[in-house]
Amino acid sequence: MIIAVDILSGEKPADVLIRGAIDATKEKDISVILIGNSAIIEEKLKKFVYNKKKVEVVHTDEFIGMDEIPTKAIKEKPRSSVIIAAELVKSGKADAFVSPGNTGASLTAAYIKFGRLKGVSRPAILAHIPKGKDSFTALLDVGANIESKPINLVQFAVMGEVYAETVWGIKKPKIGLLSNGSEESKGTEITRKSYKILKRLPLNFVGYIEGRDIFTENVDVAVCDGFVGNILLKGIEGIGKLIFSFFKEEIRKYPFSQLGALLMSGTFKTIRKKVDYAEYGGAPLIGLNKPCIISHGSASSKEIYNAIKVAARIVNYKLNKNIVARLREYDVTKFNWFNWERFF
Amino acid sequence: MIIAVDILSGEKPADVLIRGAIDATKEKDISVILIGNSAIIEEKLKKFVYNKKKVEVVHTDEFIGMDEIPTKAIKEKPRSSVIIAAELVKSGKADAFVSPGNTGASLTAAYIKFGRLKGVSRPAILAHIPKGKDSFTALLDVGANIESKPINLVQFAVMGEVYAETVWGIKKPKIGLLSNGSEESKGTEITRKSYKILKRLPLNFVGYIEGRDIFTENVDVAVCDGFVGNILLKGIEGIGKLIFSFFKEEIRKYPFSQLGALLMSGTFKTIRKKVDYAEYGGAPLIGLNKPCIISHGSASSKEIYNAIKVAARIVNYKLNKNIVARLREYDVTKFNWFNWERFF
Repeated sequence: MIIAVDILSGEKPADVLIRGAIDATKEKDISVILIGNSAIIEEKLKKFVYNKKKVEVVHTDEFIGMDEIPTKAIKEKPRSSVIIAAELVKSGKADAFVSPGNTGASLTAAYIKFGRLKGVSRPAILAHIPKGKDSFTALLDVGANIESKPINLVQFAVMGEVYAETVWGIKKPKIGLLSNGSEESKGTEITRKSYKILKRLPLNFVGYIEGRDIFTENVDVAVCDGFVGNILLKGIEGIGKLIFSFFKEEIRKYPFSQLGALLMSGTFKTIRKKVDYAEYGGAPLIGLNKPCIISHGSASSKEIYNAIKVAARIVNYKLNKNIVARLREYDVTKFNWFNWERFF
Repeated sequence: MIIAVDILSGEKPADVLIRGAIDATKEKDISVILIGNSAIIEEKLKKFVYNKKKVEVVHTDEFIGMDEIPTKAIKEKPRSSVIIAAELVKSGKADAFVSPGNTGASLTAAYIKFGRLKGVSRPAILAHIPKGKDSFTALLDVGANIESKPINLVQFAVMGEVYAETVWGIKKPKIGLLSNGSEESKGTEITRKSYKILKRLPLNFVGYIEGRDIFTENVDVAVCDGFVGNILLKGIEGIGKLIFSFFKEEIRKYPFSQLGALLMSGTFKTIRKKVDYAEYGGAPLIGLNKPCIISHGSASSKEIYNAIKVAARIVNYKLNKNIVARLREYDVTKFNWFNWERFF
């Protein structure tokens, strides 16, 4: 298994990203192609001990910045690292790619180069939301689409089900549809239509869920429009940071607290990690013909390492093949969708 | 100033709610009318020391439960505590009401009894989002409306501006429109239309903001549809609880952490309070002819106390009069809205 890793687009120095990739090659069956300035990469590689057969370097100096407009930049920068990564996957030289760059650029590059999976109307970005005891909720879509239609929300639910089953090994994962209340009468016109279809499908649909439910065992998969999901995900990130900054501020005030914090430093670290979803290996873009993992611009070595492992799992467990089969099994491909509209 | 307080609809025992109301009467100029079972209330009142002239009791045994469908329950229970509260305000016997009950019931009772402010298309529920140093962001709407139109989002922005100015004393508050990214090209058709109008108004519009910005000094007022706002608000609540449960779990594991936590117990308490937006006195419903404050079902004495104070401030600072004037000044009343549609 070969994972292409975009070393140029992240905000962290090359060696941070390279370290993550090299660590991943220590896993059986994982090789990497590092994309970036080859002279710099070769230089940085010198400080690591690794299996040289498992690391290849592809040179480019071009990359898409965080503030560039994705569709425009993709056209103007054909040699940018994210496009090269996508092309390596398209041509079969790599099995998936990981990029810590501009989310829109990764999305656009993957979309253009890979195309949608058979039967899929729109791809989705899936985020791993931490909850108790090393378990997660798959929240999708968190930003690939704005203004989703019922077919999109329904397909997100099915793709999320297959993801939780095949990648996490959860049997009959609980699927919830995010809304402003749990009663069937709640929601928008789009969510109400989607609800009607979801309850007819053979998946474990628990109905509407509220924002707080994504942190509980009430669901394994939480479905929403990319506009809502993006705002929610960034809101969660924001409050997590705020709580830790409150701690810092308060601890500074009292000597007792300072001593307490010192004794608790391990606990603080653990919790920061638990809350920081960056730890969980970025966000897979699902619904396209090849896998792509979107990492944070500020991705650490650990995040890159985890993102590569998530990519490997997606390939190993044949997520895409399973999604295509499940959509057909449930009869919710884009080709058959018209059959469902009579239930609205 | 007289505030009607619904003692029956909350989840906490009557004396918890009564204590909050009695505490508020210690403020100059605040009197309360307590609505609930008069025998129970009179009995509970015996344990408090208070100015008897400032506390009145109105009897009813009927209330709307948390799981009842608001519109139906409002029709079937004309003697329910929340309706009596709204009627006391409507008739002028009270200036505002506070209810810790079913949100939809408070909303419906207030809407039916008070009617909309002149020029307002839809009311909004405004939540106080805590951020550093005892400051807040006003997030609206968090659930009064689903599927808002541009006129609604624009009016929420103006109402939020007036709220931050008059109730918090912020000059030229920064207004942001929640979206999936900060570029003008982002957002839904509705947010993009709203954006076009907002940037033409004389308010301090900072453009699109992301979920994380609501916890920063980037904005004082964050505007969104009630569907998005509700999911975001409940998501924030959820992660806050999750972080504290992570702490509990981790602290239990290590003796050092236990000692540390003991030394830090004051800090934990402070931060819990800071994060718990319940502390900030519920969510005002704005845009109606009279004020109503929606508190949590689980409202504590402190929350009821704060909610009453927020209600008093809204009345004192003539929020409603200012909103009507500002909408007219900006020419964004519902009567004049057609003038703006050419900018879409």
